[in-house]
Amino acid sequence: MNKDTKPNLITNIKNNFHKLSKGQRIIADYIINNYDKAAFMTAASLGEVLNISESTIVRFANSLGYSGYRELQKELQELIKHKLTTVQRLSLNDYSENGNALSKVMEKDIDNIKKTIQELDTENFNKAIDLILKSRRINIIGLRSSTFLSGYLSFYLNFIFDNVKLISEGANDVFEQLVMAGKGDVLIVITYPRYSKRTLEAIDYAKNKGCLIISITDSLLSPAAQKSDVPLIAKSDMISFVDSLVAPMSLINALIVALGSRKGESTASYFENLESIWKKHDVYDE
Amino acid sequence: MNKDTKPNLITNIKNNFHKLSKGQRIIADYIINNYDKAAFMTAASLGEVLNISESTIVRFANSLGYSGYRELQKELQELIKHKLTTVQRLSLNDYSENGNALSKVMEKDIDNIKKTIQELDTENFNKAIDLILKSRRINIIGLRSSTFLSGYLSFYLNFIFDNVKLISEGANDVFEQLVMAGKGDVLIVITYPRYSKRTLEAIDYAKNKGCLIISITDSLLSPAAQKSDVPLIAKSDMISFVDSLVAPMSLINALIVALGSRKGESTASYFENLESIWKKHDVYDE
Amino acid sequence: MNKDTKPNLITNIKNNFHKLSKGQRIIADYIINNYDKAAFMTAASLGEVLNISESTIVRFANSLGYSGYRELQKELQELIKHKLTTVQRLSLNDYSENGNALSKVMEKDIDNIKKTIQELDTENFNKAIDLILKSRRINIIGLRSSTFLSGYLSFYLNFIFDNVKLISEGANDVFEQLVMAGKGDVLIVITYPRYSKRTLEAIDYAKNKGCLIISITDSLLSPAAQKSDVPLIAKSDMISFVDSLVAPMSLINALIVALGSRKGESTASYFENLESIWKKHDVYDE
Amino acid sequence: MNKDTKPNLITNIKNNFHKLSKGQRIIADYIINNYDKAAFMTAASLGEVLNISESTIVRFANSLGYSGYRELQKELQELIKHKLTTVQRLSLNDYSENGNALSKVMEKDIDNIKKTIQELDTENFNKAIDLILKSRRINIIGLRSSTFLSGYLSFYLNFIFDNVKLISEGANDVFEQLVMAGKGDVLIVITYPRYSKRTLEAIDYAKNKGCLIISITDSLLSPAAQKSDVPLIAKSDMISFVDSLVAPMSLINALIVALGSRKGESTASYFENLESIWKKHDVYDE
Repeated sequence: MNKDTKPNLITNIKNNFHKLSKGQRIIADYIINNYDKAAFMTAASLGEVLNISESTIVRFANSLGYSGYRELQKELQELIKHKLTTVQRLSLNDYSENGNALSKVMEKDIDNIKKTIQELDTENFNKAIDLILKSRRINIIGLRSSTFLSGYLSFYLNFIFDNVKLISEGANDVFEQLVMAGKGDVLIVITYPRYSKRTLEAIDYAKNKGCLIISITDSLLSPAAQKSDVPLIAKSDMISFVDSLVAPMSLINALIVALGSRKGESTASYFENLESIWKKHDVYDE
Repeated sequence: MNKDTKPNLITNIKNNFHKLSKGQRIIADYIINNYDKAAFMTAASLGEVLNISESTIVRFANSLGYSGYRELQKELQELIKHKLTTVQRLSLNDYSENGNALSKVMEKDIDNIKKTIQELDTENFNKAIDLILKSRRINIIGLRSSTFLSGYLSFYLNFIFDNVKLISEGANDVFEQLVMAGKGDVLIVITYPRYSKRTLEAIDYAKNKGCLIISITDSLLSPAAQKSDVPLIAKSDMISFVDSLVAPMSLINALIVALGSRKGESTASYFENLESIWKKHDVYDE
Repeated sequence: MNKDTKPNLITNIKNNFHKLSKGQRIIADYIINNYDKAAFMTAASLGEVLNISESTIVRFANSLGYSGYRELQKELQELIKHKLTTVQRLSLNDYSENGNALSKVMEKDIDNIKKTIQELDTENFNKAIDLILKSRRINIIGLRSSTFLSGYLSFYLNFIFDNVKLISEGANDVFEQLVMAGKGDVLIVITYPRYSKRTLEAIDYAKNKGCLIISITDSLLSPAAQKSDVPLIAKSDMISFVDSLVAPMSLINALIVALGSRKGESTASYFENLESIWKKHDVYDE
Repeated sequence: MNKDTKPNLITNIKNNFHKLSKGQRIIADYIINNYDKAAFMTAASLGEVLNISESTIVRFANSLGYSGYRELQKELQELIKHKLTTVQRLSLNDYSENGNALSKVMEKDIDNIKKTIQELDTENFNKAIDLILKSRRINIIGLRSSTFLSGYLSFYLNFIFDNVKLISEGANDVFEQLVMAGKGDVLIVITYPRYSKRTLEAIDYAKNKGCLIISITDSLLSPAAQKSDVPLIAKSDMISFVDSLVAPMSLINALIVALGSRKGESTASYFENLESIWKKHDVYDE
């Protein structure tokens, strides 16, 4: 089943309702009205609650085009993803054996990057590069766990641009830091589920002042993507209570490298300048 | 040729010196004395400098056990990796076409995670978990670009531990922040080439006070790994002037998830507490 | 007229209402209903609005016990002080000549410290010292412009205590940073008009968890003082759009010095330790 | 004895050497060679060490133009001030009684502001204002305990200027943050004894790039004052191990207010903009 039909899972159930058997309709009803609970029930426990056989539940999934109940359940979990509380997330996976955590988590991250490569829109990537290169000021915002990605992006862009402004929570709030932003500016927004409300407010505020918005987020359906001029999608996947930001970091690396290449000579000359400082002040181990 | 023999490339040349032809000895000599230049020369340009045919150079590589000159050159680049200046790095790769950067960078990151999984020492991973769980205080340090990884690790550990201390550059310097550290404490160090000198000094300072050291770094040969009680290796690969920290971030995710699982109930109860705050103060978009 | 009667200015007018002449009652009415506007009107302009002679206005002030209209107006401005918007503040003073600003501002700061000395409650100061010395953890919070005072206090306390935790806006919000706080902890709060709402919420949150609260604020009437176990008062005075935090900084100096003295020997030994680090790492100019 | 002769105390002793009695010469010799110790000895203990009567020591002070030994000792302490280690400072004052600390510290701060007013050079203050108003970029640096003053200055200037850049210790070092600075820029430096070496290096680096330097420091003899185009002097006085930054904060208030006045209309309009944000996002307690 194609990823893009995901948001229509509930609709899909509704559309196929007339085809369903009586027992299947009971399941459909329950899922529509209790999708947040259903997302965490096995076929067995769902059957128990509804007093319906497990095989009926599997057939129900098949009728909707899924290979089995697990696939349907996965879609359901995807659907409610950014509405999950962290406590619900903790119950999603079992990582109680350490070794388990290790390989599971890292393999999921490989998948995230792979999906990101497959789905990435090169045209938008190039558009983002052009927009950044010609903007008056490059504002960057990422709050909560995305703070570290926005800091990382800003750390490197500071080496090649003179007009980078990192917006972060501090003594001055994020709006104060954007009060002078305006036409000709770009705001690069990094936001992942659960989306920080303050970040979304900052987008509205900056847009209203005339900034163009580039978003780095997890899906075209994310509220940040929908508010932005150029959305760049890199997959994240919650693992227990952590939002994996590995694929977005990889995308950010690509962005930095592409920008550095485009600035060409001046990048090299800044670094020559920096090398001599680093040497003089003994910054790196030799 | 096995990765672990890498540090002995120069030694390898020396050991095989008696077997080499006259022309090959000229190449060997040049490489030993100019390895930093040689690392960036093609077989053709090396041949031109030494007035030797390209095929002699290829045979030279074969004599030393490499499939060709490119493989030898790669080893050479690895060898000098953390001694490279950023200006030299810029010349290492060509990312001038944006799309190019995009897929090249992200595929390299997949490779980095794969290598990390293959080479990871599960025993050490488990040792690290145990050590963190029983330490009096969990000190975390990462400077320069690793600042964002140490901040990210600390961000999540703050949800499950009451004794996390993030050491960072600020008004108080890193030593002042460690002045009260001592026996029973752990220091988690994150450091990637080019290794920050201050980070290495902080390890020495903390060790001397009786802290145990867990390092997250790129190789067992890294100075931080050698100074540490429990080294955890996650590959990084420089891409142009950026050190990709994607694989280390993935390892850190695994560490956080494993620690959260081991704390079990108390993790869930902290999050229940936090959920109600987040709701009350409207932190996340609903 | 005593400062402490200040909050009763409106009440004072009401109580004396029966003694007032007809013309004076018109003034009284206007002030009660438009005190925020009246606070910024001269006797002349007030007279004009009300169609009443300036001398009636002066006599009105006298009837209420003020030496003149200017004194009454000052009280009025004090009264609404922390409800003033910054735009209103800008109109409060004229500092358009630079030299003017210079001496006016600095003399106001001397006054602030003098008043602070006169009104300081030594018993509370000593209570605060004792409480800090025996607390499990010393949490410190100051947001907005008070961020710099809380940072300054924490900078120095880090030299003499091992259990200082600075709470500030960042990737983790202030509540998350207090989630593990509890019985036996102290929270030192620094807040000045216009009081940050988040700071007041943090007090409630920490109190609820069992923390004792020491506040450093501008008046016993400040909401932070009223919520706290040990209020320490240091005067601030808005000068144009700036809240002068000079007197609070002076009080914080006294707090640090008194705490350092009480810790005695251990303070000296920490500094001996630090001196050798500073020397080794060349922190200070010799 | 005039403050400005302070640096010549040792010279003064040397110049008057021929006038001294035999016993006085022993004292003179000892002080010249052991001035760092002598600075902390009472007349009695000095007498004991040298086997000379206390009254001889007092007469020695008189011969050099001091009212007594205490005055000479004070000059001596001033002389070595910024070479004092923190451990020596701790022995300078006794604040073991809390109440004592409280009034002593605050009165010293009043003195510091008074001296600052007396000695302030209004012409330089005006020059600083003009320079800041017309600069391309306003860079601000203050490290160690001055971090909080530079943060405070930047907090307020962000409300009225669009070109403020706060330089601080962080992932990017201070030189990297200045790498794009140049002609037309100003660097405002805040530094107090013991002067941070990194701050002085930053001045040299920025000067070399063509920045003009405004320093806020404790004396015209401070290395920062000597390297700067416009020095602004505000007194600090060490109290125990704390450098009181109260007078500099007062000077910074004056600077902010004067700059806000000069920007006039635009300041008011920025604040109107901010007021509506603050209201919308409930920043301040009402």
